[in-house]
Amino acid sequence: MAVNWPINLPWFPVDGVELAAIPAGIRYRNRDDLVLVRLAEGTAVAGVFTRNAFCAAPVHLARAHLADGSVRALLINAGNANAGTGAAGYAAALESCELAAEVLGIAPNQVLPFSTGVIGQQMPLTPFKQALPDLAAALAADGWERVSRAIMTTDTLPKLRSRQVNLTDGRCITLTGIAKGAGMIKPDMATMLAFLATDAPVEPATLQSLLNQAVQTSFNAITVDGDTSTNDACMLMATGRVGGSPVQLESADGQLLLEALQELMQELAQGIIRDAEGATRFIAVQVEGASTVAEARQVAYAVAESPLVKTAAFAGDPNWGRILAAVGRSGVSNLAIDAVSLWLDEVALVANGQPHPEYHEAAGAAVTARPEYTIRIDLGRGAQGSTVWTCDYSYDYVKINAEYRS
Amino acid sequence: MAVNWPINLPWFPVDGVELAAIPAGIRYRNRDDLVLVRLAEGTAVAGVFTRNAFCAAPVHLARAHLADGSVRALLINAGNANAGTGAAGYAAALESCELAAEVLGIAPNQVLPFSTGVIGQQMPLTPFKQALPDLAAALAADGWERVSRAIMTTDTLPKLRSRQVNLTDGRCITLTGIAKGAGMIKPDMATMLAFLATDAPVEPATLQSLLNQAVQTSFNAITVDGDTSTNDACMLMATGRVGGSPVQLESADGQLLLEALQELMQELAQGIIRDAEGATRFIAVQVEGASTVAEARQVAYAVAESPLVKTAAFAGDPNWGRILAAVGRSGVSNLAIDAVSLWLDEVALVANGQPHPEYHEAAGAAVTARPEYTIRIDLGRGAQGSTVWTCDYSYDYVKINAEYRS
Repeated sequence: MAVNWPINLPWFPVDGVELAAIPAGIRYRNRDDLVLVRLAEGTAVAGVFTRNAFCAAPVHLARAHLADGSVRALLINAGNANAGTGAAGYAAALESCELAAEVLGIAPNQVLPFSTGVIGQQMPLTPFKQALPDLAAALAADGWERVSRAIMTTDTLPKLRSRQVNLTDGRCITLTGIAKGAGMIKPDMATMLAFLATDAPVEPATLQSLLNQAVQTSFNAITVDGDTSTNDACMLMATGRVGGSPVQLESADGQLLLEALQELMQELAQGIIRDAEGATRFIAVQVEGASTVAEARQVAYAVAESPLVKTAAFAGDPNWGRILAAVGRSGVSNLAIDAVSLWLDEVALVANGQPHPEYHEAAGAAVTARPEYTIRIDLGRGAQGSTVWTCDYSYDYVKINAEYRS
Repeated sequence: MAVNWPINLPWFPVDGVELAAIPAGIRYRNRDDLVLVRLAEGTAVAGVFTRNAFCAAPVHLARAHLADGSVRALLINAGNANAGTGAAGYAAALESCELAAEVLGIAPNQVLPFSTGVIGQQMPLTPFKQALPDLAAALAADGWERVSRAIMTTDTLPKLRSRQVNLTDGRCITLTGIAKGAGMIKPDMATMLAFLATDAPVEPATLQSLLNQAVQTSFNAITVDGDTSTNDACMLMATGRVGGSPVQLESADGQLLLEALQELMQELAQGIIRDAEGATRFIAVQVEGASTVAEARQVAYAVAESPLVKTAAFAGDPNWGRILAAVGRSGVSNLAIDAVSLWLDEVALVANGQPHPEYHEAAGAAVTARPEYTIRIDLGRGAQGSTVWTCDYSYDYVKINAEYRS
């Protein structure tokens, strides 16, 4: 039961990117769980990966192959994370790249592997061997929608978004992206599997810089449960097929591309929260009046991850005491609670650390009954701010995580 | 449904401490919710309080009165936390001390106030005015058991423990304590309301030092939900009624007293976790092989507060992948996951970052089916360690916190 996340919106293929998905039987039966993406020669690829010290074999390998510098394919599976699998897991990830390289006629280090699913089980290779020839034969530019479903685990809805932007010289570029993830979500560099592509021509270093910037206000600004995944990866590919000269970072076009990318990535990141495990509310925690952005993020995450704030949100309870208690324990030094003010959407609940004189609970409850709203916190000590998106904790969060083996 | 927490164990009154509880109607009907404790003249009192920046009016006032140095009474209420209540809340706390002082014939700054319950509602004073004369008349040395029930909020069982220790010269001293708290529990100095007393003679500075040491391995080593309360307080009182010369910190008797105190406080702190909101398991997270104690605590808390680890525990799932993922994101710098080993009680699951060759899941599941067990993590990088106690996240945790207004 996702919160305000329409699917089946129009989207655009990206010239130079072909995709396919197939039911390979890695874990699930009769559902797509293996994805192949072929990139046109010369495509620039940028990536950000989990900073969890316990990171999966495919993350190690994707980082290494990305550094080799001439990526031509992505190989993505659901159902098995290939994490906590040691040397055997690394060998399996490498062999999967070799199998994909063989059917595509490229080198193994031109393939980036990505895995999502259960931690701690060895990756079976037979499904890869059996499925890859059919998968390669099915590659097509219109594969995005099916692929967006194939990478789902506890997601209930696919996350596919797309947009087109006109550059200053009239070139119309396309940006399309998919993402997955619904639990173990507090990305630290990027969330669990997001893939974005553009037909704009962009040099690799510029592309990486654009991705690094855009991730800060999107996948690095969401949390479901504070648990950072072992397999997080966010990849941005630029095929250059629209033609013309490369987009420069410090240019009007660079700015246009960055804005479109930020918008797209923010929408996908928010999609992950809207469809988070058991979520019934979509909540923006907007902290302002902080001395630094880091301090604002620290407070926003303390509120966004407080189990008491999240269970109150599930109940539709405008419980500002729990919110202030989370602000108070956030670890910001010398925080003066009597300078703090708090709003739920347009309703002022707390002014200078005390109940707002005109606040009455019915007004707060009218906001917390909404499926989405903003908790706005003014720390009253500076001019910096930051926003984090989160969801509530419901019975279904417990049910899903007690029953699902991640 | 508390985990292995027997009540009605034998306990000892403490000479010089008289207690009473009464139904005052602060919030609840027909249950005790107001407590008065009278201390013999000359009783030394030590305390530790919440470090939440958003702390309640009674915490501010109790700190101030404690500093004044001649405490004779504690006034404790359930049902209203008197937090987030501004200047009016402070005035109410002060007036409650004045009312108590009046019936006891002492000065208002000889009374320490403590409140627990709903945040953000003004404290009604009429119940105090009406109840205090009867409460003072009921003071008795055998009031501990009734008082331990009167301070409960979402607790399902009272926490009362007691012991006697022989000092080196044959004096037999008594130590008795009560505690309450079941949610908003990640004490940072002390948990939400614990009161301990001894009849040993101890100078105030020594008493504070003993308390500071004992709290580190007890109330500061537990977590239910990572949320630090606005009202945490832990008070230790020494009446000296056993007679003789004061117990010195650096002496055999000081060591005996410290050990007994640590044992008692650890038992009460564990009682809070055993009776935590919705808890079905009691789990010790024991981290060893760390470079520093601080690092061990950081890892232990990351595991103990991971919603994914806690929901897996609820399900009885020996999900070591989620545990290692929490270790990996704990923020310890340069953590090498391939040096990490993991046990559930006697069963080795992970050796050097990989599944233990002899591990089979049935052995792990046999441990996680137990109502209490130890997650032991060896970081393989040093000789320091730390243990944190926690519980699982169940449907009832969500239910209790969606329905209860804290």
